[in-house]
Amino acid sequence: MQGDQTARVHAYLTELQDRICSALEAQDGQARFAEHTFEGDGSSARPRVLSDGPVLERAAVNFSHSRGPALPPAATANRPELAGRRFEAVALSLIVHPRNPFAPTSHANLRFFVAEREGEPAVWWFGGGFDLTPFYGFDEDCAHWHRTARDACAPFGADVYARFKKACDEYFFLPHRGEARGIGGLFFDDERAGGFEPSFALVRSIGDRYLSAYLPILERRKHTPHDAAQRDFQLYRRGRYVEFNLIYDRGTRYGLQSGRRIESVLASMPPLAAWRYDWHADPGSPEEKLVEYYLRPREWVGESP
Amino acid sequence: MQGDQTARVHAYLTELQDRICSALEAQDGQARFAEHTFEGDGSSARPRVLSDGPVLERAAVNFSHSRGPALPPAATANRPELAGRRFEAVALSLIVHPRNPFAPTSHANLRFFVAEREGEPAVWWFGGGFDLTPFYGFDEDCAHWHRTARDACAPFGADVYARFKKACDEYFFLPHRGEARGIGGLFFDDERAGGFEPSFALVRSIGDRYLSAYLPILERRKHTPHDAAQRDFQLYRRGRYVEFNLIYDRGTRYGLQSGRRIESVLASMPPLAAWRYDWHADPGSPEEKLVEYYLRPREWVGESP
Repeated sequence: MQGDQTARVHAYLTELQDRICSALEAQDGQARFAEHTFEGDGSSARPRVLSDGPVLERAAVNFSHSRGPALPPAATANRPELAGRRFEAVALSLIVHPRNPFAPTSHANLRFFVAEREGEPAVWWFGGGFDLTPFYGFDEDCAHWHRTARDACAPFGADVYARFKKACDEYFFLPHRGEARGIGGLFFDDERAGGFEPSFALVRSIGDRYLSAYLPILERRKHTPHDAAQRDFQLYRRGRYVEFNLIYDRGTRYGLQSGRRIESVLASMPPLAAWRYDWHADPGSPEEKLVEYYLRPREWVGESP
Repeated sequence: MQGDQTARVHAYLTELQDRICSALEAQDGQARFAEHTFEGDGSSARPRVLSDGPVLERAAVNFSHSRGPALPPAATANRPELAGRRFEAVALSLIVHPRNPFAPTSHANLRFFVAEREGEPAVWWFGGGFDLTPFYGFDEDCAHWHRTARDACAPFGADVYARFKKACDEYFFLPHRGEARGIGGLFFDDERAGGFEPSFALVRSIGDRYLSAYLPILERRKHTPHDAAQRDFQLYRRGRYVEFNLIYDRGTRYGLQSGRRIESVLASMPPLAAWRYDWHADPGSPEEKLVEYYLRPREWVGESP
């Protein structure tokens, strides 16, 4: 039963991986994803990474099917009673770092966990979501991103988008900077409301919407003329992305703790990132507006129509 | 009594800060340290950062005198019984990121803590050390660095260098990469063997030796001709530095946990760092030798003569 569910999620996520990689290659127009495959001990992984394209400086779209004798702490932060259980997980995790500073970085993750212990019923749950990190903000991009996110959730309950958006704003936050990582999107964990079928349908609805959320924005911004200072600002802001992923991100910590292939775990790192000391944007500049306006959680769209 | 000791360490560390900053400015020949000063609540800080010099791409030499109502966990990893105590700390922390890929990055830290609780005797200790992170290795640099470290410790006991070197190799290690951060040096914590005077003398001996350990190496390597691939390799290896500091470094975590000024805490970040996916050095290349030879803990010098 659980095995059958895992197989169905497995099939969906690998098919989604194919679809997303094809679409990203088409957007880039030149670079191709390099694929590795790893098999062993009932586990498998299919990391795919595209590097040094004219449009995509790096994109990582990684599928993994893992099993382990003991659930790592980072996987169960909200459910300490499951720590140490035998587990099986299928996950698709992706990040896109475009080259153009006007094209935002995007991230998505979809995962299905089953945790078991002898003599107790298996526990399963879904987690995931998608979020957007612009370097230069555009209201229309934010509205499109969140409208697509809202539409993905709408069939599954009136409050789903609001809950997942709030969780996203709370999760992708750098306390030491007092800044959001980006303009948010959807984030969920421990999802099994209503049982497997509705939860899986919600996950598919979100997974299927990632490309329709991101591609129009990437398309619109990827060839924006820019100067060296704007590129430097992108690299500087990517430093925040590095800080979030290495200090706080549960997916990264889970990857480090579970001893997964490190090159896959850290394929999310930007190809190039910069740190400045005590730098402040000019008052009234687009660089200031990023932090003061776009990186403050706000309602980008109204309720479902 | 404790106040008098703190004042003496304070005076030594600020004087050492002046000495080190002058010497680094002389090495750079052009850029100057920008100084901030912060005062309040019996605390003070004097971060100094040099940026964008022809020789030094960034150097941060930060003094801080802090007080807090409760010792943060990262300060007491080895002494959980002290967590939550009222504390006072004076510390000098420095990092130098040269521009030339043949000039190694260096780091040093010296700190004095006093932790108090009503009705119990105050507990004090020193911590610190220095370590070197080359991008291209040279046996003579490693030998000079470790010989200077050994000489700093020699008057304080036959086993001090060996103990501190071992602790340094163990501390500056990236488990997820299976790599040392650099070629090591000295690392100590909870140091109070023999009482305050001998401990403080040991700390001064190490602090005074930092410049004689580092300057000859920087001097020798700072103008080495190099190509873009060697610069790129330096940026790639700086990614490891970022990983160590954000994932593991207790000083950085302490800074984040204690709510210190974030620009001072993260002044240690390199100005520019790169990540590559699944990259491997050519067999037999100097880039391969860095990891396979220099970043394996080894004895660079014999016993004290």
